[in-house]
Amino acid sequence: MTHPIDQALADLNITLPTPLAPVANYVPYVQSGNLVVISGQLPMKDGALAFTGHVGMDVTIEQAQEAARLCAINLLAQVKAAAGGDLSRVVRCVRLGVFVNSAHEFTDQPKVANGASDLMVAVLGEAGKHARAAVGVNTLPLGAAVEVEAIFELK
Amino acid sequence: MTHPIDQALADLNITLPTPLAPVANYVPYVQSGNLVVISGQLPMKDGALAFTGHVGMDVTIEQAQEAARLCAINLLAQVKAAAGGDLSRVVRCVRLGVFVNSAHEFTDQPKVANGASDLMVAVLGEAGKHARAAVGVNTLPLGAAVEVEAIFELK
Amino acid sequence: MTHPIDQALADLNITLPTPLAPVANYVPYVQSGNLVVISGQLPMKDGALAFTGHVGMDVTIEQAQEAARLCAINLLAQVKAAAGGDLSRVVRCVRLGVFVNSAHEFTDQPKVANGASDLMVAVLGEAGKHARAAVGVNTLPLGAAVEVEAIFELK
Repeated sequence: MTHPIDQALADLNITLPTPLAPVANYVPYVQSGNLVVISGQLPMKDGALAFTGHVGMDVTIEQAQEAARLCAINLLAQVKAAAGGDLSRVVRCVRLGVFVNSAHEFTDQPKVANGASDLMVAVLGEAGKHARAAVGVNTLPLGAAVEVEAIFELK
Repeated sequence: MTHPIDQALADLNITLPTPLAPVANYVPYVQSGNLVVISGQLPMKDGALAFTGHVGMDVTIEQAQEAARLCAINLLAQVKAAAGGDLSRVVRCVRLGVFVNSAHEFTDQPKVANGASDLMVAVLGEAGKHARAAVGVNTLPLGAAVEVEAIFELK
Repeated sequence: MTHPIDQALADLNITLPTPLAPVANYVPYVQSGNLVVISGQLPMKDGALAFTGHVGMDVTIEQAQEAARLCAINLLAQVKAAAGGDLSRVVRCVRLGVFVNSAHEFTDQPKVANGASDLMVAVLGEAGKHARAAVGVNTLPLGAAVEVEAIFELK
């Protein structure tokens, strides 16, 4: 029987990517007790950065929401790896930290962050409801439009 | 008998507000084990954002400290809800993450963050002493002057 | 017998500084369960801030990497204090949060953050491999070029 989470991914037509390995002296995730802390993910798609620039200047809210959604998909790929391939072990998405590469007067970071939050709940259901901090920043790695980090609880 | 924390709130003439519900697919707090992770709080007062703008440009240090204090009050309202209304269950404020909406040359984020830190200690005493990261950012949700997130430990 | 961590510090010619006490109502670290949450550290050396300014404008990548390395050394000094002076109690560096004071078009935050990540692994070995979020910000406390916070797991 297909687990509801895998069904949700299929219904959303989402194939989780192979989790990307960092290219430096850090790792994609660390588990401590039941918590898995996942490194900041960028809006990578098919191995390339899909959205770059400052939201409210070079990037629209809609594009930024899609960027945040991609970050969330990449987070799910990492937590799946952390859970040994079994997303049913995810008890909860505990926290998302959302950094939006923002023009100075852009103040709709919550709308952008919803791109990640909505995806979490669409895939994980109640277990996807998380605490969140969303802030603007003046620049991000490789010029990414959005970066999202996460903490999950596993069983 | 009044608990010392409730007494401290009374002495400071602080009535904790009804905790605000997020308007999106996230929640005000998530408990995992003994830890409660609380979403970033803005300087809301009586249902409206009390301080907006860039500190060091449109907002003074004193105003920003008051904004940080309001964020801390809103965090206390959330942790009180998480603790089933009983603040004496707070073992410790573990961490505050303070984001200050800053003019580019403004570097007094620690003074601003003290508005939140001092309130925590005034209300919770020793249990209010926390680890802290305070940084500047170029913009925040809704143009808020300050955003503060937190982790608490409950018993 | 010298513990491998102390040996690594000696080999790197690093003497951990006396951990700095915060000058406000917060503390350098809080332990909750096995986790130690450490306050954001600045690139202090011999009691003074060694690197200030915006990376990509007033500060080079190489200088910023050295600043990040100093932050990491200060984090190690704090976790050593948290561990009662015994770094062999460090099970893992769980997470580094790296904030780089950045010119708006500077996008090499990962290279800067490697200054901290490489030091952690050089000193702690496998236990130094952490999850990481590295972002740009438009300004930092006292004008510091880099700020790094951390979570460690102790045994």
